[in-house]
Formats: sequence, structure tokens, C-alpha cells
Amino acid sequence: MNCLFVIMGASGDLTKKKLIPAIYHLLKNKEIQNFAIIGISRQDFTTDSLIKFYKPYVKNSDPKIWDEIKKRIYYFKADFNEDKKFHELAVLMKKTESKHNLSGNRLFYLATLPEHFELIAHQLSKHKLAPQNKTWSRVVFEKPFGNDLKSAIKLNNCLKRVFKEDQIYRIDHYLGKELVQNISILRFTNTILEPLWNRKYIDHVQIAISEDIGVEQRGGFYDKYGALKDVIQNHSLQLLALTTMESPKHLTEKHIRDEKVKVLKSTKVKDVSLGQYNGYLKEPKVPKNSKTETFAALKLNVNNDRWKNVPFYLVTGKFMKEKLASIYVEFKKTPGLMFENVYDYPSNFLAIQVQPEEGFYVQINSKSPRTMDIIPINMDFCHSCKFGPNTPEAYETLLFDVLKGDQSAFIRSDEIEEAWKIIDKIKKPKIQTYKKRGIPNSAKKLIKKDGKQWHLTINYLSKSNGNG
Amino acid sequence: MNCLFVIMGASGDLTKKKLIPAIYHLLKNKEIQNFAIIGISRQDFTTDSLIKFYKPYVKNSDPKIWDEIKKRIYYFKADFNEDKKFHELAVLMKKTESKHNLSGNRLFYLATLPEHFELIAHQLSKHKLAPQNKTWSRVVFEKPFGNDLKSAIKLNNCLKRVFKEDQIYRIDHYLGKELVQNISILRFTNTILEPLWNRKYIDHVQIAISEDIGVEQRGGFYDKYGALKDVIQNHSLQLLALTTMESPKHLTEKHIRDEKVKVLKSTKVKDVSLGQYNGYLKEPKVPKNSKTETFAALKLNVNNDRWKNVPFYLVTGKFMKEKLASIYVEFKKTPGLMFENVYDYPSNFLAIQVQPEEGFYVQINSKSPRTMDIIPINMDFCHSCKFGPNTPEAYETLLFDVLKGDQSAFIRSDEIEEAWKIIDKIKKPKIQTYKKRGIPNSAKKLIKKDGKQWHLTINYLSKSNGNG
Repeated sequence: MNCLFVIMGASGDLTKKKLIPAIYHLLKNKEIQNFAIIGISRQDFTTDSLIKFYKPYVKNSDPKIWDEIKKRIYYFKADFNEDKKFHELAVLMKKTESKHNLSGNRLFYLATLPEHFELIAHQLSKHKLAPQNKTWSRVVFEKPFGNDLKSAIKLNNCLKRVFKEDQIYRIDHYLGKELVQNISILRFTNTILEPLWNRKYIDHVQIAISEDIGVEQRGGFYDKYGALKDVIQNHSLQLLALTTMESPKHLTEKHIRDEKVKVLKSTKVKDVSLGQYNGYLKEPKVPKNSKTETFAALKLNVNNDRWKNVPFYLVTGKFMKEKLASIYVEFKKTPGLMFENVYDYPSNFLAIQVQPEEGFYVQINSKSPRTMDIIPINMDFCHSCKFGPNTPEAYETLLFDVLKGDQSAFIRSDEIEEAWKIIDKIKKPKIQTYKKRGIPNSAKKLIKKDGKQWHLTINYLSKSNGNG
Repeated sequence: MNCLFVIMGASGDLTKKKLIPAIYHLLKNKEIQNFAIIGISRQDFTTDSLIKFYKPYVKNSDPKIWDEIKKRIYYFKADFNEDKKFHELAVLMKKTESKHNLSGNRLFYLATLPEHFELIAHQLSKHKLAPQNKTWSRVVFEKPFGNDLKSAIKLNNCLKRVFKEDQIYRIDHYLGKELVQNISILRFTNTILEPLWNRKYIDHVQIAISEDIGVEQRGGFYDKYGALKDVIQNHSLQLLALTTMESPKHLTEKHIRDEKVKVLKSTKVKDVSLGQYNGYLKEPKVPKNSKTETFAALKLNVNNDRWKNVPFYLVTGKFMKEKLASIYVEFKKTPGLMFENVYDYPSNFLAIQVQPEEGFYVQINSKSPRTMDIIPINMDFCHSCKFGPNTPEAYETLLFDVLKGDQSAFIRSDEIEEAWKIIDKIKKPKIQTYKKRGIPNSAKKLIKKDGKQWHLTINYLSKSNGNG
């Protein structure tokens, strides 16, 4: 495997915090053998100062591996408007490929603000920097994938003028997380789950992505999007699609993405609650009269045979009680006729915890010692206890997928567009203010109406040693 | 709760090792308030020497509670043949009840050899020691419940002349074990098990009761019975009945026992392997030409809608690899079409471990980090980790049930008879010798023919700390 990484936005947070550490681990794990990195930005770096700038972000690095990386980093200062700079870049890329014996595979990582994507795509096309002959050129970027359906289509079309869909890797880093990649294996290889995964046995599903902090320094960016566009449109709906999709014909990119699109097309929003945390308007760079939501709770239906009448609740927010990303699947109760008029007992549930600790657990009913009382107990599998925390990091997994040309964990243009259709149709209710560490009253009501309650603090894996 | 315990066989192993400690715990846990114990045997004890004889078997006893018990024990020397002794016993019982303000509830525990049961029943009847008016009289005893169907019917009839069925408590101490009492709650209150508990999803079931020692000093007794009559007829078939029975109308004695009888009536033995461990013929008191089996493996079918074509394997033996009692339920695989020609993966299973450690665990499939490989992982609930080891002891649970008059964990006469019908019909194959810590070749073949393998060393709970 060999490749030239061309990183647009080399001085940004994403590059230093995620991409450089990911490339380090790819090399360490021998997932890449030969490569070079050209880092591009408008800042006043030199190659040496860029290397020094990156170093602290590769924690506890092996000096031998870091030396290998150092030899392969090149800084290139440019404004994406400057035509002649792209001419120079073409020369540098050729030279670098020749120096490091690279065969011509090129990975363009757009680690810039999204408003530059169109311009960059134009320049890459004009200067023929992304050829696709015997070697490959691939472009990688992240959300926001537009701001609504219209802008998303515009962005998709602009990229498609330069790249074919099979060259475009839209990252949702949640799809690189171990427990998210595990959903299909859990669902489809386990007899204790597969036959139960439908409206007959599942009562409802909650997909929570909560943060325990506010917007911090990102208020200026965040305020343009808000919770629906920043999280629900991408992460939450992707988790929903993986949880609800039909069994794909094969676990390969085309079939998985076909099934996700299909289920998104059947998904309708039934109820919405929006909130803004108390104090948001005083955050740096947030307009004093902002109507942007920092919290969203949705009730959705998936209108197909499998899921008719099963409510799906998506919830996300800043300044909630715990940092947590989880999929909570509550099962209906058994008939339990023999306990009639005597016992009630809790429902079984499966919780797939994506972060902070990774793992999953099942709550089932058991007998209490000495009596025939029924008590809920937990059976858990702590992924991080067994395999170490966050092993491997999502970005390492995803970059490795790009190198291999496996698009199954990346989002296709039609998925983006279907997700925007869902979001664009939402009739926004009045935004309620909520206390930090709380949720809006309207969100409490949204689920209480259905006789259910939020599970936003289940965090069982972190609170146990694994023993019941 | 008050009661006079009349223990026939007061100097035996059962009394000192199980009954006295159970009574101690009943008192300690305030499950009994007022009582007295009359211990009867042919040995030369006095009340004082009997108390001293019992003391070491109540480990770490609380002196206050032991003092309470000491004050309430009376020794009575008698041969069950001696008519006049029973006359004296009647007087002692009255006197003791009067002294301790007991209301007349009497619990007769036949902790003697079974050949005395008939005589004792006759004497109790003749001397009117077991009246059932405003107070109750109950009789408790253990296997062997006869030696075959004919002798079992004879014993049942003899007891029924003195006691009604609702006064007769046949103990199978396995039914007092926490994890056995848990089977119905696990099966019927959990949606992740209840809909799967049938031929559509269960591939096969193995019920193993293995010992890692030989007959030791019990060779004389054991040789008259063997593995089929000593274990399969009672413990193994009871576990089978609880695992396979239909949902009882209520979880009460009549309905549970009705369902167990019904499923035993549908049970047929399809294949048998018998073995004798190498060295058995040299054990003390074992006849040198004994043809008694110390190992038995059976394949059975339960011919009803729920279980048609699902094989059940029962296995028990002396000198096997591990001391273990467990119910292993293997599920069929999911269709897993999307993995076609790519992956195979293990089956899910549930193992209910009755001893030595108590608990249950499920093996399911998960994703291996870094790859999409499917690996089996364990999710366990360690009962003893949570509730302490063997809490409470089976005999405490069962004696408390007798005091309360709850027969659900005791075996009814028709259950005994149905179980004997199954055993009596077995055509015994030639007994194979097997090495200590092994099993006979014929037992290996019995299950291999069906493309399956024994799970006789699963003992997951003892080998983990509960983390996957």
C-alpha cells in the first residue's frame, strides 16, 4: 500500500488531533508501507515548524516511527484562490511521489471549512491533480454535507464534476467506531437477537448522543447549524439506519448503503422538541438573539413491515447530564401469564454503548435469592475491558478503509440527500430554554405521552466491573 | 411459624450435614420462630452427646442461635420395629410440644435407608402420630423413590395409606438450588429467551451432572442403583422437565407439576451409552463382577409441537473431568446470508450453571477489533459473585417450603412414576470401561453421530472475573 496524502487545512484541529495520529498508527500497525504527506494551509509554517506543531498530538510515540513520518512531511503554503499555487502544487506532488517511489495513488483530505470545498474541487479538476488511471485518486471530507437538501445537492454535483462517486469518501466518524461497525454483526449473526429485531418483539428504540459541555469556542460555527443539522442529520440518522435496515444481500458497500437509503426513505418525523441551554446566548461568537437549538429530541416512525408502530426516539444535546452515545433497544414483555395478578417485571433491553466506554449489555430478569421475586440483572460485554479503550481510533479505521477502497463505512450522496429530506420537513416548534445538565420540559413530555421514559444516563459499563 | 421436627435417622450424614445446618439458618433468618427437634436412631446417643455430635457441622455458628437450638433438641433411641417405642415416642412428642408451646404441627423427616420407609409409615399410622386436623403433619424424604416403576408404586401406595399427597414432600435437592428455581423465571419473563425456546431456534440441549470423584465409601449402596437410577431418573429428568415444560397456568405447585408430568409423558429415550470407570470393581464393598454403570449418556426426544426433532442429551458420571451441573442450550444459527461464502461463525448458546459456581452466561458473536472478523464473546451473570456462594443452601429453601406448605419444588407421585417408565424402558447396552477423567467411547460416538460435541467442561464462571 502506498499513497500521497494531500491535506488541505494542514494547520487545523482535525489534522493535528485526528489525521496525523491516525497516519502514525497506520504506519505502526503496518497498514501502510510507503507514503508522503503534503500539508497545505494559508498559515506561516515551514516543514520543520509543522512537524514540531504536530509532534505533541502523537502521544507516547515510538521515536523510530515518528522519524519515518518526519521524513515524509512537506508543508506547502497556499490560498485556494491562487491559481498559480496549484500549478506549483502539481510540481511538488510529482516530485514528492518520485522521491518516495510512490506509484501515484493520491488521497485528498479536505480538512478545511466546507465553504472551500467547491473551490478546491474546481482547482483539482483544472490542474488535473486527481487522475484515475492505473492508480487511484480519492477525496475525503466530513460533515457538514451542506446546510439543507438544496445546498447538499449543489455540493454533491460540484464534487461529481471532478470525482466519481466511488472516489468520494464522506466521513461520518461515528461509522468508524468499533461498536457502530459491530451493529450488523450483532444483529445478523446472533439468534438471541436476529429473530427478535422487529415490531413483534421490540417496544421502542432510543438513540442518544449527548454531551456534557456547551459549544465552548465553537459557538460561531455551531450557531449556523444547531443540533438537528450538526448531529441528527448525520450521526443520529446513520445510527438509526444501521439499527433498522433490512439484512443487506452482502456486507459490502453497495448493499449496505442501498439498504440504509431504503430505510431512510421510509422514515418520518412524528414529533419534535427543541431546546437551547440557559447561557447559550452569552457564549463567545453566538448572536445575542440566536434561535439555534442546542438540544433536539425527535420521535420517528419507520413505515415498513418490520417497524410499523415501533417508535424511535433520537435525542442529542449540549450540556446534558452525561457524555454518552448509545442505542437503547427495549423489548416488549413476555406474555408472563403464570405471573398474572401477582408480579409485574421489567422489560429486557439491549444497550449498545458507543462512547465513552465501548460495549453492550443486556438487562434480563432473574430470580432473587430466597424468594421467587423477579429482579432485573445485567449481563455485559465490556469491549474496552477486553480490547483496550477505543481500539483502534475511528480515524485510523476510516483512513485504512480509504486506502483499501472500501466505502462501506462512508456515506453515499443519496444517503445525505435522504437524511436532509427528513430534516428539511421538520416543522420547528418553539425552542425551550433548559437548565444545564437537564433537558427541556417539552422533551420530557414527548416521551411521557407514549408511556415511556428517557434512558440518558445508562452508563452501566463504566459503573461496574462486569459482574452483574 | 412453629413446628416439631421428628427426624428418623438422627445420627446419619444427611441429618448432621444438611438438616441441622438448614434448621440453624432457618432460625437465623427468622424463617422459623418456635420449634423443637426429636432425633431418633438406634445409636447410643444421649441428648447431650447428640448436640456435641452436631455442633461441628454448623460452621461459624452464632453462639446465641446455637444456644436456642441446643435447648430444643431431644434424643430418642429406638428401633423402628419396636412397637412400644412408638408408644413412648407419642408421649415424648406431646410433652415436648407442650413444653415449647408448639401448636401441633409435625414434620417427619425420613433420613433413613429407604427400606425402613414402609415400616415407619406403618408405625406412624398405627400410633396416630401424624394427625391432620387444625394443625398439619407432613412427611419428608429423599430418593431413591423405589428401584423401578413397580417398587415406586408400592412405596407410593404404602405412604398414601398414612398421608395424603399434599402431606408428602419428596425432596430432590436439585429443585432447591437457586439456579434451578430460576429456570422458569429465566424462560418465561425474558423476551430474549421466551420466543426462542422451541424447535425453530434451539438446536439441541445438554444436561450434564458430572462428578470428579468415584463412589468412595458409598460403593455398597451405589452398586444397587448405578448412574441411571441414582441421577438420571431423578435430578436429570427433573432438570429436563423444567427446561422443556410448557408455560404453567400459574407458577404454583399443581400447575408446575402437571406440566412436568405432561412433558415427561412425551419423552422417549433414543440412544444410550453406559460406562464403568476403570477401578470401580476394586472400590470397597463393590462386588467384583458388578455390572453397575457409573456413567450414563442418553439421547432423548420430547415428542410435542415445541420440541419435535430437537435432541436432548443427558449425561452423568463418576470420575469425570470436572464437577459440574449445567444446562447447555445451543441455538441454531441465523440465516447469515450476507456472510455467504465468506464467514462461518459460532452458534449462540445459553449455559445455566447449577454448580459448582452458580450463574448463567450467553455466548454471542461480536466483531473483532480492526477487522470484520466474527468472534464469540461471553456475557455472564455470576449469581454467586452478586449474592454470595450457594445462598441459601438448597435444604434451607426446601425445609422452609415444607413449613409453608409449598409443594412446587417437590416431586409428586405421578412424576416419579413417569420418570421410572422412561428409565425402565431403556434397553441397556454393553457397559464400556472408561478411564478416570474421561468418558466411554460409545458416549463420544453417541453425540458425534449427530454432528455435535459434548460441553462437559464449560465452567466459564469460575474462569473469569465476569468481563467477557
